Amino acid sequence: MKWARATKKSDGAEVTGVIVDDMLHPHQALGSDQRAGEAIPLADVTLLAPVVPGKFIGLWNNFKAAAEKNGLEHPEHPLYFFKADTSLTGPGATVVVPADAGRVVFEGELGIVIGKTCKDVSPDEARDAIFGYTCVNDFTSLTILNADPSFPQWTRAKSYDGFGVIGPVIETEVDWSALTISVLVNDRQRQSYPAADMILPPEQIVSCLSRDMTLNPGDLIACGTSLGAAPVKPGMAVEVVIDEIGRLPVSMAAPE
Amino acid sequence: MKWARATKKSDGAEVTGVIVDDMLHPHQALGSDQRAGEAIPLADVTLLAPVVPGKFIGLWNNFKAAAEKNGLEHPEHPLYFFKADTSLTGPGATVVVPADAGRVVFEGELGIVIGKTCKDVSPDEARDAIFGYTCVNDFTSLTILNADPSFPQWTRAKSYDGFGVIGPVIETEVDWSALTISVLVNDRQRQSYPAADMILPPEQIVSCLSRDMTLNPGDLIACGTSLGAAPVKPGMAVEVVIDEIGRLPVSMAAPE
Repeated sequence: MKWARATKKSDGAEVTGVIVDDMLHPHQALGSDQRAGEAIPLADVTLLAPVVPGKFIGLWNNFKAAAEKNGLEHPEHPLYFFKADTSLTGPGATVVVPADAGRVVFEGELGIVIGKTCKDVSPDEARDAIFGYTCVNDFTSLTILNADPSFPQWTRAKSYDGFGVIGPVIETEVDWSALTISVLVNDRQRQSYPAADMILPPEQIVSCLSRDMTLNPGDLIACGTSLGAAPVKPGMAVEVVIDEIGRLPVSMAAPE
Repeated sequence: MKWARATKKSDGAEVTGVIVDDMLHPHQALGSDQRAGEAIPLADVTLLAPVVPGKFIGLWNNFKAAAEKNGLEHPEHPLYFFKADTSLTGPGATVVVPADAGRVVFEGELGIVIGKTCKDVSPDEARDAIFGYTCVNDFTSLTILNADPSFPQWTRAKSYDGFGVIGPVIETEVDWSALTISVLVNDRQRQSYPAADMILPPEQIVSCLSRDMTLNPGDLIACGTSLGAAPVKPGMAVEVVIDEIGRLPVSMAAPE
């Protein structure tokens, strides 16, 4: 099933539901069996980020091809940062490249959405705690990341408003290991890599993270990126594509 | 005014309000002028973390004495990380020292609570956006922080459940520059330093952060610690004290 969150164009009301045949079928909440009204044509809504995560976690160094190219060891436990709640945005957003952010890159990623509260779970239990998968564009300022030699600024580099793009939907019935994550810039493919090249797979990531902290429904984990992340500039159209999930386009803009 | 959040011992209902003379006067919400019921004796409630922040930001290297001792430059922009939403806890909590966290230290800090949404504000405007101040104990695993030479794990080291202690209240009428932040371990003073030794003062911190991201009401910024942070072990009683704000005690425990 493809879960989405949207606002109605008619009255701005927020709806969470399931997309079937270009119709959004409202449900009480993400993952709820309870229907909540008549189906709405997709043309009559604006899609939002499909979930508002309590924690927006991003992994570093989780793909074998990138680790090999960069001479990095394979971690046994996820290496991660958080993105700000206010970095969150959805499909079709305009993402401002701040003046002081300097060199900003896109990073196309697979996102895991948590469905159940979990703490200290095994990889098998973690599999049950995964609600579904979404596309992520984890924009990052390389200039800020490396601006201070005493302190790598992962948090700041990844937390500008709009730097955490997710969507268009959460797909609950998909084999993550068969997915390919691609990024198109102005309709030309700039990044494409198989999810199966992951160092720590989703159930291992969730199990490990649940040993560090309680994970709650809606928490989102971006699995890290591989080779091909590249700089963006105002005016560019940047789109993360995972065929089985959907297309996640944004437009890059200069500050006003 | 001293704002607090609490649950009633009678029925578990949550209350936000103002403390006057050992009574909690309920208000509609944090900072609201609207009263919301009869005053309740403090003896009949359990205090919680006084706010649930959307972002829980922590600064590194923001005190002159610590920078001098550690041979660090004074940053011109805050160097920071986020703590997990699930790390949040309040006065009187039991904080578990996880088995794999190794060497865990307390860090007594002054916390800034945001009162208004702000983006790109000047230091003068930032002063208006500050709702008040609270005590913070920013527990940190030094073992995890330094476990991987390729990636300092600020997020993981500071995000175990219970590692973000705040309270007991948010004081809205206080001169931050006159405060002293102290930590007592088993009733013996282990840390004590003046807030006035800060490198970047609160209005500068809020102004700089608002250039990176939108700050929202309830967001919390721990201003960083100074000399004296020291290891804790299960069984210890650890208390952050800022006289004009209050006492923030926790008990350290081993995993079950």
